[in-house]
Amino acid sequence: MTLQKQELLYEGKAKLVYSTTDENVVWIQYKNSATAFNGEKKADITGKGRLNNEITSLLFSMLTQAGIENHFIERKSETEQLVKKVDIIPLEVVVRNITAGSMAKRLGIEEGITLEQPIVEFYYKDDSLGDPLITEDHIQLLKLATPAEVDILKHVARKVNVVLSEFFEKKNLRLVDFKLEFGKTEDGRIILADEVSPDTCRLWDKDTNEKLDKDVFRRNLGSLTDAYEKILARIGGEQHV
Amino acid sequence: MTLQKQELLYEGKAKLVYSTTDENVVWIQYKNSATAFNGEKKADITGKGRLNNEITSLLFSMLTQAGIENHFIERKSETEQLVKKVDIIPLEVVVRNITAGSMAKRLGIEEGITLEQPIVEFYYKDDSLGDPLITEDHIQLLKLATPAEVDILKHVARKVNVVLSEFFEKKNLRLVDFKLEFGKTEDGRIILADEVSPDTCRLWDKDTNEKLDKDVFRRNLGSLTDAYEKILARIGGEQHV
Repeated sequence: MTLQKQELLYEGKAKLVYSTTDENVVWIQYKNSATAFNGEKKADITGKGRLNNEITSLLFSMLTQAGIENHFIERKSETEQLVKKVDIIPLEVVVRNITAGSMAKRLGIEEGITLEQPIVEFYYKDDSLGDPLITEDHIQLLKLATPAEVDILKHVARKVNVVLSEFFEKKNLRLVDFKLEFGKTEDGRIILADEVSPDTCRLWDKDTNEKLDKDVFRRNLGSLTDAYEKILARIGGEQHV
Repeated sequence: MTLQKQELLYEGKAKLVYSTTDENVVWIQYKNSATAFNGEKKADITGKGRLNNEITSLLFSMLTQAGIENHFIERKSETEQLVKKVDIIPLEVVVRNITAGSMAKRLGIEEGITLEQPIVEFYYKDDSLGDPLITEDHIQLLKLATPAEVDILKHVARKVNVVLSEFFEKKNLRLVDFKLEFGKTEDGRIILADEVSPDTCRLWDKDTNEKLDKDVFRRNLGSLTDAYEKILARIGGEQHV
């Protein structure tokens, strides 16, 4: 029996999640909505859902080949994909190679400084609190993950950073920083989930430092889909321009 | 030759700092100003400078006796004290025993929950940035302290917590949380500095949970000096009521 899409389980800012006839699989539909600043800035951008779905599918497949287990199963359509059902851990795991975004603002430092070592940060995924930066002690206090699980998150995040940085480097892109989310499978393993796309990664052209990620939307730097099409073209997807 | 007060080196929100005829000693004058919310709320409260000067003097003397080196030398007058000259490390080292204040707000949890283990947090002392919470990686990035120095800060902060908690416990007070600042001496040692007072500690009556600290000012709970007089009376200072 072919797997069928069933009821809507959850609507996020960028995705719809449906159950399927297989209880271990969920059906994701990428939306065209762009949001920033904890939902304060919003827009509907035709093509964004397709681009993120294609880019995420390509990157998750590449990560699987590099030995990094993740929730991706297959792309179903331009805007849809199947993924393994996991319980998302409410942490945004951010890896930074170059100063930018909220960290630069928090610390009052310039953007664009290459870090001596990548930095891993944890943010508590809670819109009502504005996704605050938290420490490992806070993670324990909130019982979001055990210390051993935090070690896994950091270890996998650093490994993803090595693989993605090398991959993008070959595409003439600098991986400035990115946000990962992880989920727990039914048997308790922690695997990479959510998405890996220009919505969740800062990507700068290696020669010009042109921003080719969601900062184009956040900072009104031009056409978001033009930027995302460039990313898709460079990483080898079908082009739609 | 008796030590003399010389020029004003620095005016902070709560204290004036003067040089003296001894280059290794500075002369501190406690002001009556109360500030909260990064300076947004301000008031001049007669008696506050005297109370904080007396309380800090008593607590630093007690900490010295408990083997915790700090900058305090002697109280000079109702509102003045002499301290060793140090270069202040721009970190607020916060130790928490019970949930309250900015941590409770950040994490969306109730105040008053006793933590299984005390939590140590670091805030970057920078008014223009709003004294943000930072991680140990950020401390390295900003070169505020080496990893070995961070270990010293955490170790001493935890030791201060044990000593202060036991001390206040005997005075029927609960030490909810507190903020420490550290400085470097000329020969590079890290010692406790700044102040330890109801401006920098949350202290609740053990039986009634009455707040006897700066939250009285922050949250308009009554007379700040009445609260601080109660603390002074309990810890054994002269009473002025």
